[in-house]
Amino acid sequence: MREVAVVGCGMTKFGELWSQSLRDIFVEAALKAIDDAHVDHIDSMYVGSMTPGLFIGQEHIGALMADYLGTASIPAVRVESACCSGGMAMRLGYFEIASGHSEIILVGGVEKMTDGADVTYALATAADQEYEVYHGITFPGLYAMIAKAHMYKYGTTRKQLAMVSVKNHHNGAFNPNAQFPGEVTVEQVINATMVADPLTVLDSSPVSDGAACVILASMDAASKLQIPLIKVLGSGAATDTFALHAREDITALKAVQLSAKAAYEMAKVMPTDINFAEVHDCFSIAEICIIEELGFTDKGKGGSFTEQGRTALEGPIPVNPSGGLKSKGHPVGATGVAQIVETVEQLRGAAGKRQVKNARIGLTQNMGGSGASSVVHIFALQK
Amino acid sequence: MREVAVVGCGMTKFGELWSQSLRDIFVEAALKAIDDAHVDHIDSMYVGSMTPGLFIGQEHIGALMADYLGTASIPAVRVESACCSGGMAMRLGYFEIASGHSEIILVGGVEKMTDGADVTYALATAADQEYEVYHGITFPGLYAMIAKAHMYKYGTTRKQLAMVSVKNHHNGAFNPNAQFPGEVTVEQVINATMVADPLTVLDSSPVSDGAACVILASMDAASKLQIPLIKVLGSGAATDTFALHAREDITALKAVQLSAKAAYEMAKVMPTDINFAEVHDCFSIAEICIIEELGFTDKGKGGSFTEQGRTALEGPIPVNPSGGLKSKGHPVGATGVAQIVETVEQLRGAAGKRQVKNARIGLTQNMGGSGASSVVHIFALQK
Repeated sequence: MREVAVVGCGMTKFGELWSQSLRDIFVEAALKAIDDAHVDHIDSMYVGSMTPGLFIGQEHIGALMADYLGTASIPAVRVESACCSGGMAMRLGYFEIASGHSEIILVGGVEKMTDGADVTYALATAADQEYEVYHGITFPGLYAMIAKAHMYKYGTTRKQLAMVSVKNHHNGAFNPNAQFPGEVTVEQVINATMVADPLTVLDSSPVSDGAACVILASMDAASKLQIPLIKVLGSGAATDTFALHAREDITALKAVQLSAKAAYEMAKVMPTDINFAEVHDCFSIAEICIIEELGFTDKGKGGSFTEQGRTALEGPIPVNPSGGLKSKGHPVGATGVAQIVETVEQLRGAAGKRQVKNARIGLTQNMGGSGASSVVHIFALQK
Repeated sequence: MREVAVVGCGMTKFGELWSQSLRDIFVEAALKAIDDAHVDHIDSMYVGSMTPGLFIGQEHIGALMADYLGTASIPAVRVESACCSGGMAMRLGYFEIASGHSEIILVGGVEKMTDGADVTYALATAADQEYEVYHGITFPGLYAMIAKAHMYKYGTTRKQLAMVSVKNHHNGAFNPNAQFPGEVTVEQVINATMVADPLTVLDSSPVSDGAACVILASMDAASKLQIPLIKVLGSGAATDTFALHAREDITALKAVQLSAKAAYEMAKVMPTDINFAEVHDCFSIAEICIIEELGFTDKGKGGSFTEQGRTALEGPIPVNPSGGLKSKGHPVGATGVAQIVETVEQLRGAAGKRQVKNARIGLTQNMGGSGASSVVHIFALQK
């Protein structure tokens, strides 16, 4: 396989972007990424988007975005894997360059969630319609069951869950693109409106509009650009049983574990080599389970690991320096690519007040549904 | 790039499959393909599907199908490019093997269109919601405008349009998987219920349920299977302006032309080297425009070329020996993969009464929207 580098990145502010359409926000992020990379053309495009059909009545997103970006004629395709659509778009764009077929590719993610659609129904299409949603459960309920089981099995506390949100809002306060940059306290999280016991609205990522893009290039093409290169060291993806009830242990996210294992092996690194990670904190409990599956701490210890500040910006393994889905926002199809945008900025040392010290190797983890799909990438600054 | 072969294929009957769910039909086609290829595992999965969210309220199709196929844990992703979702899934699966990352991949396509959704609205999400659909136009109307323009500019006749359907229903009569295998006459096509002048219901592909799958393998892995190998000679994809009104000439399908050019160049073949083709005859006029863009005849001559029987099963370049979308059916996400299933059967000499004589090189062309995206593949029997 040929080696691949990320040579440019750009994103919109995440939030309720009512004055811009789906195509507007995608093009804004794409132009920023193209400008950042100083490339004069792109060979093809991959666009992650979860359910624009249900959100705004528009499919065929690859061709639409190529047209509005002014690149119509090049191949363009949409990739979907629920909330890890963006991460999977990255993986597929990576393969196209690794294969030798293309030199420069744009990978983007976009979602427009606040234009009036039934968001809870639209998001529930990532769960099993026949065995889960039909019976009335949606994602807050699924993650609440994971949280309850984790608390019962491992003694994880309500405060530990809240501290994920507190940390991520603290980081997001330094992120100009964050939808909810304000700090929150443990008490505010615990006493916020209950969504699905034990998860309150402040344990939950928001409903967001937004887009993020990166430019990938072969090392040959990248080396001509005279910019700092962020090398893709590893890519891993995996799936798990689709419905939560089919799993032996609902606190285990096997797809996360397997996708991380594949990425670590490909990158030839260990969890202890990772300097920071952007992970899929759609709910506070998700981040706790994920940092366990990524091997940052032992299974069952994610809560105390968080409480001890080990994942804080100044801790040994900062998690979600961007503010994560919780503070930055979660336009579902864009999230996986936005994680890579943050990782590139951190590795370049350009993350301002949320800069992780000595950031040399970064990891992104993006997840679909209640963990039925996961994709992990590992990046390093090319010396 | 590593060379890739198709080593197995399978599909369901196309039609109104009311006793089976989306996952049922996908798994049926996938098991047939796995059985056909004699493979004992697959490394990853690509699933083409256009809008299962709008058709049956289910997204996250890659992970769902991996689970129901019994392969959960391997990477699985959905690919969308409207009605060429299946063809694009093929292209992306091809890249993954060509890159050297994987050895054996399942590529499938699936759609469940007859379960009660508003099909015309769902399909219209492949057109421009803001500049086309908002004003009331849907696909029959868009293709009717192309037909009117082609008749005006090139003198294409109503009878020539009808002869596309007559030919495809004749071929489909020999296809046990066809939804509408019955023969039709020119008079029946012309006098059928008008959909959008000049196109009647018998110029139009039907609404269908169905699934199709193929197994791809690296030449190394394929050569161990001791089965006839169908080599992928070329893959081309392209886009065009998204809305029809933005094109200089609405009778030209530039994405088809560009995707064919890319595939021909990669395969190092000319249009005259192609022995048969499966093309995207969503409406009769589409096949006429497509055979022109593929270079089988000159621009404007597609109607007379068809009328002269040049694309008939016994003609010099048989087009849609399977019966095409018109007779075989058009479960949109499945169509591009079903074209490859037919091509494999033809190249193996296993197409029964619809067998093309001396079939050595076959081409598939799959299209999204009114031609905003197109993907072409070229295959040959490995000697």
